[in-house]
Amino acid sequence: MTDRLAPGATIGILGGGQLGRMLSVAASRLGFKTHIFEPGANPPAGQVAQSVTTAPYEDEAALRAFAASVDVITYEFENIPTSALDILEALRPIPPGRAALATSQDRLAEKAFLRDLGLMTAPFADVASEADLNSALETIGAPAILKTRRFGYDGKGQARIMALEDAASAYADMAGAPSILEGFVNFSNEVSVIGARALNGSVACFDPGENVHLGGILHTTTVPARLSPSQRSDAVLIAARILNALDYVGVMGVELFVTAEGLVVNEIAPRVHNSGHWTQNGCVIDQFEQHIRAVAGWPLGDGSRHSNVVMENLIGEDVARIPQIAESCTAIHLYGKAEAKPGRKMGHLNRIIGPAKG
Amino acid sequence: MTDRLAPGATIGILGGGQLGRMLSVAASRLGFKTHIFEPGANPPAGQVAQSVTTAPYEDEAALRAFAASVDVITYEFENIPTSALDILEALRPIPPGRAALATSQDRLAEKAFLRDLGLMTAPFADVASEADLNSALETIGAPAILKTRRFGYDGKGQARIMALEDAASAYADMAGAPSILEGFVNFSNEVSVIGARALNGSVACFDPGENVHLGGILHTTTVPARLSPSQRSDAVLIAARILNALDYVGVMGVELFVTAEGLVVNEIAPRVHNSGHWTQNGCVIDQFEQHIRAVAGWPLGDGSRHSNVVMENLIGEDVARIPQIAESCTAIHLYGKAEAKPGRKMGHLNRIIGPAKG
Repeated sequence: MTDRLAPGATIGILGGGQLGRMLSVAASRLGFKTHIFEPGANPPAGQVAQSVTTAPYEDEAALRAFAASVDVITYEFENIPTSALDILEALRPIPPGRAALATSQDRLAEKAFLRDLGLMTAPFADVASEADLNSALETIGAPAILKTRRFGYDGKGQARIMALEDAASAYADMAGAPSILEGFVNFSNEVSVIGARALNGSVACFDPGENVHLGGILHTTTVPARLSPSQRSDAVLIAARILNALDYVGVMGVELFVTAEGLVVNEIAPRVHNSGHWTQNGCVIDQFEQHIRAVAGWPLGDGSRHSNVVMENLIGEDVARIPQIAESCTAIHLYGKAEAKPGRKMGHLNRIIGPAKG
Repeated sequence: MTDRLAPGATIGILGGGQLGRMLSVAASRLGFKTHIFEPGANPPAGQVAQSVTTAPYEDEAALRAFAASVDVITYEFENIPTSALDILEALRPIPPGRAALATSQDRLAEKAFLRDLGLMTAPFADVASEADLNSALETIGAPAILKTRRFGYDGKGQARIMALEDAASAYADMAGAPSILEGFVNFSNEVSVIGARALNGSVACFDPGENVHLGGILHTTTVPARLSPSQRSDAVLIAARILNALDYVGVMGVELFVTAEGLVVNEIAPRVHNSGHWTQNGCVIDQFEQHIRAVAGWPLGDGSRHSNVVMENLIGEDVARIPQIAESCTAIHLYGKAEAKPGRKMGHLNRIIGPAKG
């Protein structure tokens, strides 16, 4: 890994969406320049970055030139092609690192990793064939959910199996991709912990937030989450255990189901996370700056919470509400995307609901 | 003036220093792009802007192309040449506006404007000749300070007159520039109010901060300032009166001396102000976003203070302390400047000293 970067250094970011954009802004606060690598034209992050490379992940020359122009490389999303990572990793450090990416790029590997750490997950089984699916359903039962092992995002590549007779159709939906069957978890609510780990191994977690999804997409995150003091401790300890096991450097999102038996890990995201956007207005140092501090080899900042916040995503035409929202006491964060498509994350709001207690 | 700008619009900013940089970041939060116009190469603001024009203010073609590429123009400093403003103003709105610039570009006009509003200022007199200076000194007395009327900044273009015999040398220091003699004010402390005024005339002021200078440069701003409740009201009312009198749109810094006779206006700055940097970590909506909201024709945001803060400037080699500072519970804001020269503002810190009371 890298030594501590001095202000003036350049941080390369793979992916030019809203997460890259907010990482770039956080980097600027610490005096760093950013260089965005993004296949799509006019990426949102490019509006607040020193440089942008527009090239596919298969363009080896572009990847090499990008790496040569930066001091460290990080990423805003986990589904970066392995071939690109192989090229970049030989040239520059890529925190959070390959172990975290390999784990989170494959739902089966992720579940096995979590189970091996002694953490609770949904019941799961590898599905490489329709026969596998039928046998997995015998063990796990219905309802269950069949998911492709790789490249899942916001509910895509998933099929619900409400009864055994849905199996064939669900299997067909996967189009032959290696898959995983996951049993349902009976949970009261979902929370997430945004954890950060520095190069020296120190860990700092933001207060858990409580998530509500609509149509498979995060709708709101509220802090504080409805958790007992011991659940709150458990949530943070689980996140820390995962960060340490991966020798992780940077910010990670850990989604947890709250159940009568304890906290069940739903999934991990090896990057800044939508459910951590509340930190921008609830903390002096937000998740984006924690990530930049970690990948730059700096100590983590003080992420303690000064305010209670409800974060709400603005999806698609939700942005048409901006003129009304601007009248209210709400922090607005827009992503600079030209077109509001259905399901597209256009921005988010952080509504302050009072000072943090205690 | 402009109608309400929609997200996706481009805001032009004259000046690419740290104020333009932080304005650009605030604009990005509201979904705006920015285009920086700056004579110097590699401006700090350019690291977080969509576009940069590097050209002198005398380059009419560059000014016209810049104006054509943006929806509204604002500025990070007040000493923009009049000829450039004449060209730009014919093409695009330039909030806060010419009245504020004309007033604040000329210390004599500023003092006269404030006096005509019924506000207290230091005693002052126009100095167009050495004879004027001698006659002004008879009225105002020594100690006093002789300043050029235009283009003063951070203590430059000023000469102290401790006794009458210093007059000739002080006059020579002005090198024939039209000047103003200002008497000293016997004050207990200096505070500033960062006020904002929207296109619809509504005014919102941040809580007053208390300033300490070192060597003519702002060293710290602390909120809350040591003010009685009535002084606090007076400070805000003074700022509002100035904003309204200028039909101002945007953020203004108003520096006030606290004296036994009341608040004396030291100077006004028609832009975001160094003494308002604490708002980045003390409020949900900071001075930079208030300015962008105002110039975009949006309603002002909620600038109420959630935390008490000490802002400290990092001047010159102060930035060498960053590795130690990063260990502490302090928000760091660096400006991306390549070289730390003596007296150069390299960044600032916001140290949270507790939750805001009340």
